[in-house]
Order: sequence, then C-alpha cells, then structure tokens
Amino acid sequence: MAVYTEVPDEDLKAFLAGYDAGTLLSFKGIAEGVENTNYIVHTDRGSYILTLYEKRVDPGDLPFFLDLMAHLSAKGMTCPVPLRDRDGHALGMLCERPAALISFLEGVWVRKPNVEHCRALGDTMAAMHKAALDFSGTRRNALSVGDWRPIFASVADRADTLQAGLADEMERELTYLEANWPQDLPAGIIHADLFPDNVFFINSRLSGLIDFYFACRDALAYDVAVCLNAWCFEPDLSFNVTKARALLTAYAGRRALSQAEYDALPLLARGAAMRFFVTRLYDWLNHPPGAFVRPKDPLEYAKRIRFHRSVTNTREYGLD
Amino acid sequence: MAVYTEVPDEDLKAFLAGYDAGTLLSFKGIAEGVENTNYIVHTDRGSYILTLYEKRVDPGDLPFFLDLMAHLSAKGMTCPVPLRDRDGHALGMLCERPAALISFLEGVWVRKPNVEHCRALGDTMAAMHKAALDFSGTRRNALSVGDWRPIFASVADRADTLQAGLADEMERELTYLEANWPQDLPAGIIHADLFPDNVFFINSRLSGLIDFYFACRDALAYDVAVCLNAWCFEPDLSFNVTKARALLTAYAGRRALSQAEYDALPLLARGAAMRFFVTRLYDWLNHPPGAFVRPKDPLEYAKRIRFHRSVTNTREYGLD
Repeated sequence: MAVYTEVPDEDLKAFLAGYDAGTLLSFKGIAEGVENTNYIVHTDRGSYILTLYEKRVDPGDLPFFLDLMAHLSAKGMTCPVPLRDRDGHALGMLCERPAALISFLEGVWVRKPNVEHCRALGDTMAAMHKAALDFSGTRRNALSVGDWRPIFASVADRADTLQAGLADEMERELTYLEANWPQDLPAGIIHADLFPDNVFFINSRLSGLIDFYFACRDALAYDVAVCLNAWCFEPDLSFNVTKARALLTAYAGRRALSQAEYDALPLLARGAAMRFFVTRLYDWLNHPPGAFVRPKDPLEYAKRIRFHRSVTNTREYGLD
Repeated sequence: MAVYTEVPDEDLKAFLAGYDAGTLLSFKGIAEGVENTNYIVHTDRGSYILTLYEKRVDPGDLPFFLDLMAHLSAKGMTCPVPLRDRDGHALGMLCERPAALISFLEGVWVRKPNVEHCRALGDTMAAMHKAALDFSGTRRNALSVGDWRPIFASVADRADTLQAGLADEMERELTYLEANWPQDLPAGIIHADLFPDNVFFINSRLSGLIDFYFACRDALAYDVAVCLNAWCFEPDLSFNVTKARALLTAYAGRRALSQAEYDALPLLARGAAMRFFVTRLYDWLNHPPGAFVRPKDPLEYAKRIRFHRSVTNTREYGLD
C-alpha cells in the first residue's frame, strides 16, 4: 500500500513515447499493491495502470504474468491487458525497474461480499480456468505445500507469543498436510490469490479480475479452496454455508468438479488457509515497528484451519 | 502521502447518490496530500477527486477553500471545482469526516521547472490574484510573520543538532522580520503554497492550479515571494536569476507591481523562506522514527533565507 518508486514526469513521458498510448494528461501514484508501485495514468486515449515491479517480484516471472493476462483477455475474460510498445514488448524499464503499461479495468471491489457476489465469483473463476487451459506458459506455485514449512520454521519459536500452543498445533498440521496432500487432481493455471480485493464489480455485475502476480500451475480445485477461505467466512469468522454453496454450485455449473476434487476440498481448504497463515505469521513477526503497512492478523487463518479440520463431509460446504 | 481513511464501497455509493455524478465505476486511494485522504473516482460521467479532510484541517475553513475554488473557476481560472450535492452543499460527511467531491483536473506537475514554466506561473498567479479580488470570503494567514516564532520556539533547543549556530541565527532573523515586516502592501487572496506540485502542465501549457488549502488573505507580493523560493532555486540551491526574471516579468505583465512591492520583495522572500523553514524544522524534529513520510530538509530553507538576506537590490532577482 505504497508508492515505492517516485517516477519523474520527464521519465514517464519518455517511457510513454515508446507506446501508441496518446499524450500524457496526468498520473498519480495509488495506494494499492503491497508488492509493486502503481500509478493511474490518464492520456487523451484513456486510462491506464503503470506498474513498476519492485524487489519482491522475480523479473523472470513477469513474462508469464503479462502473457497470461493477454491470453485471458483474448479468450474473452475481462482483466487488465498489458500494452505492447512499438517494438512489440509488453515489459519495459522505467526508473531502473521492470515496468508495464496496462489497460485500466473499471470496477470496485466489494468489502462485504454477499451470496450473489460469491455466485458470480464461482462462475467467473471456472471460466478463467477453462480459458487458461490452452495457455502455453507455466510457473510453479512458489507457495505450495512444500513451501509452507520453511516459512513457518523461520518464525515458529515466536508463534506462541500470539497464542499458547500455536507452534505445536501448526507443526502437526503441516506434517498432516505434507503427508496427505493430493497429487493427481486436475491441474491448470490458477489465480491463487482471488481475494475480494482482486475481483471487481460494477453494480452487481462482476466486471473483471485483477492482480495475476501469484498465478501459477496447480490443482484447479486449490483456487476454489482459496476462495472458500477468502469469501465464505463472516467477519466473526463463522462459516457461511450459503455463500459456499453458491460459489461451488456456480463453479461446477461451468466446469464440472470430479468426485476426487470434491473429496479433496476440506484438505485443500486447510492447505489454502495454511498458505495464508504462514505468510501472515511471517509478516506479523517480522514487521518493523512503526512501519506504515499494518500486517494482517494471522490468527484469522489459524481459525479457518481449525474449521476446515473439523469438516468431515462436503455437506458442510453446502453441497448435497 | 497516504490514505488515512479507508472508504468502504457501500459508504462511497451512498455518498455519491447524493450527487448528480453518475454511476460509480472505480475508486482508488492516491498517494498524494500530506494533510488529507484523496481518492480518484471514475463514474460514467467522468473523473473526480474525492477528498476526506483529516484532523490537520480546520473544518471551519473548508467553506472558504471550496467557495474560493468555485469562484476562481467561475472567473475562468482552471482549478478543481467542488460539486454541489442535490441539496446545494459542496461539503458533506463520509466516514465521519468532512468530505467533498471535486472535479478532476488533468495535468502533470513538473519536477524540474524551466524558464518557460516560471513565466507561465507568473502570468497565471497574477491572473488568479485578479480573479479573486471580488471574492467575498476571507481567511487569516495562519502561517504569517507572527506565527513563525511559536513554531520555532517549540523546537529551537534542538535546532543546533542540524547545524551549529542555527538556533541563534534564526532567532535573530525572526526578530528582524517581525520588526520590519511590511504592513501596507496591496492585499488580496493568495494561494500561499504555489510549489511546483500544485501547478499542472499539459505539454508546455499551464493547465491549472490545485490545492488551495493554505489560501488566505495576505499581501499579494508574498505569494510571489513564495514562488521565488519554490521555483527559482536549482537543486544545488543556487539562485537562477533568469527564472526569477521570467516569473516576475510575466506577473507584472498581467498585474503591475508597485514600487513598494518591488522594494519589499527581498524581505518578503526571507519571510516566505522562514515560513517553510520553521514548519520543516518542526516536522523534522518531531518526526516519529520509522514513519512512512520522510520529512523535507529544513536546511534547504535556511540557505534560501541567507541568500535573500544578501540581496540588496531587486536587480539580483533579474529586474532592471
């Protein structure tokens, strides 16, 4: 939530001159994106997002992300699309950082998603999974089951400062997940971070998906499991089975889920919750005092893990 | 440079419903404005700035600022204009803060102003001064000569940590300014903060002025003196007499400066530099460690004070 790189006006004008994007009218740094610096750019052709990729992003991954957005857009999905410069490149350099000029996607993210929002999400996520089936790029999920333990281990000795017994509980949970993680589910390109702030609506219509910077190849049902965590818990962390049913039914209406996928959902949901638990725990315990960005509470995800651990039957996700 | 208040989507929609501003398409917090929270709002009617006024602004001053913008715009100046809601009010409440929806002014602020930019600024500043002559609102300059000493006194005991002898030097300077400050110069509404980031250009054309939240009634030539400080020093703090000549000549071409105003310029420029010196010194010495906003170096303004103190003749500002 910050502008890490201040772009001088002359540098931006020189950068834009490489594109067929019109005359610069204004640009303003926006307070979104924890990983990158983003500006809204207005030209006489329209609105764009200028993204400068900061240190936390591997430059080698950027062609995958940008090509994926272009692919999905070409298949009819609404998502931001990187412009190509006059030499055909989607990725340039600005202020010594990799940078891309991306179409501006209108839409508002919903702070309090309701059942209809969950239904629209399920439908659109399935459409995205299908649209990406013939995408030739690939990228390993850098935050999959084998990656959680090293992150957890680096802060485990301080985990009990948040809650007594937390370190032991999550140690056991990790061991269980590692031993039982499903390997043969239908795989494809997943978004991997489809939280409400990455899904735009205009009025009640889903207007598009953004922020593909965690996208990777993994089990498609894992994306669904991320969304069960991100969309179907109420602020008091009670699970809203009506939202889950709407999400899962809409998804399956567009892309059928196999029995193996249904059976794996509780375990995938535990894993998805663990993925966000470990990164939040790390950020929480490595947060510089006085820093501007307030870290998110990892215990919210510990509670989600416990909920999914209690699920013995997908009926508890609202399925018949 | 921050979003202090996160506005939920539903609250913004309810707020916008009070205006004839179209359907909300998107809104994003922007990393500009040290005092207030600002969002870029896109609707199907166009682009707007939504400003939430935070603690540092006196709510009693807001009608003056908003009415001034409306007045200047009605007189043909390009500046942001507050929209009136269906009840005719320019000021509303959002997230428990005073808030205004303001037209979006296109333009880019120039990081390295050249002589032509200074010329355009002089001309437009004079036009603004004339356009405001029949504005009925008034507001005391809360950062005028009598206000500098209390700010300085609150941190003077630590001033020498920046530079040996600084406290004594500025103490003497304040005494001189207080004793000699001119009282009878032509007065009117001034912007009082016309730094480059508040002056927009599209290509080389000045496209408008923004951020009237320091505007007040004071000597018109004091506004000119602020600009001599803000626009006519090079990054190495050498004074660029060509820029000063362009600025002053263009100003006088639209609004004649009296002999008394010319004669007062070196003193006004010392005072204007002191105004920014004391607030920067205060922010520098009261800066919470680790805070996100990096304070600006007050010594840059100590050097400007010394330059203007050395000026014995307005020829040194490029005048014949």
